[in-house]
Amino acid sequence: MPRLWNETIEAHRRDVREAILTHTSALVAEHGLRSVTMSQIAEKAGIGRATLYKYFPDVEAILLAWHEQQIAAHLEQLAKVRDQAGEPVEGLRAVLEAYAHISRRSRGHGDGALMAVLHRDERVGHAEQRIHGMLRDLLAEGARTGAFRDDVVPDELATYCLHAVTAARALPSEDAVGRLIMVIMSACTRDPCST
Amino acid sequence: MPRLWNETIEAHRRDVREAILTHTSALVAEHGLRSVTMSQIAEKAGIGRATLYKYFPDVEAILLAWHEQQIAAHLEQLAKVRDQAGEPVEGLRAVLEAYAHISRRSRGHGDGALMAVLHRDERVGHAEQRIHGMLRDLLAEGARTGAFRDDVVPDELATYCLHAVTAARALPSEDAVGRLIMVIMSACTRDPCST
Repeated sequence: MPRLWNETIEAHRRDVREAILTHTSALVAEHGLRSVTMSQIAEKAGIGRATLYKYFPDVEAILLAWHEQQIAAHLEQLAKVRDQAGEPVEGLRAVLEAYAHISRRSRGHGDGALMAVLHRDERVGHAEQRIHGMLRDLLAEGARTGAFRDDVVPDELATYCLHAVTAARALPSEDAVGRLIMVIMSACTRDPCST
Repeated sequence: MPRLWNETIEAHRRDVREAILTHTSALVAEHGLRSVTMSQIAEKAGIGRATLYKYFPDVEAILLAWHEQQIAAHLEQLAKVRDQAGEPVEGLRAVLEAYAHISRRSRGHGDGALMAVLHRDERVGHAEQRIHGMLRDLLAEGARTGAFRDDVVPDELATYCLHAVTAARALPSEDAVGRLIMVIMSACTRDPCST
């Protein structure tokens, strides 16, 4: 049964890869990028050093693969909360809330060396474009129904939202993030007494 | 007259320093940080290489001195537009507009290597704190007079403003920046029909 055998190998490779990513991100979060070695990662993941090198050439490559996985998971999460919300106002609020929480969690990505590596990752820019598109579509849909302001085009309003929500990283508490989302929503919502 | 002589020397040193800063920032903007040498800077500034080294140890040190000067000038400019505005709503608008324009101009700081050097500069963090304090005071004053919302503390609202206004860097035109400021102001202003 060559097919089954191949599937088993595939599943095994996925598991090993997953273990490498998980242990590397944990090691880097704990010790900083510069002090983590391929040997430490192999040991933690329970594989030989030679095996590890068959998967990845260096620590940076592992981190970029881990980052890719994180970004994909975050985009999926944002699309899910948007779909669950149904209508555009709740959709925008849900996406902004989820994105604020993602931003807050990832601000502790650790040391400057790690941040420098991850910020060179062009996937960050692509992901931000995807989120921008998501916000823009919600804002456009809500502007048509009269829920969102229409004196600023959805594209610009989405740029505003995407930057304003990064304030979540600098805020001291989850409650403060809730108020931030309220402030952003009030800026996007059509003034009820302007009609 | 030793005093006059000292003053002449002082003025000369200031002029040389100024010329070094100006020519270095121009060279780096044109060629990128990595390809600018101390010899090129000395030549452009019309001084010997040995003299240049009496002022600065390397290109990075010159850029940091230039950056310090830029930051100080920007803070002064923001304080000035705030003072000219008089009352808090116009003050906030004026500071946000000026800061948006500063952000847009400095986004073209050039290559990644230069950005990395300037972002390590801890004065950027201090300057942002100063601007944050400026916004917070305006928001607090306006909240007391009923012009700004008071359901979010001025400190958090200032954090929101400071991040939202960075969207100016990503906007395509000055008109779009004007609309961004309008959106941010509408988020800070007390809803006229909520009273």
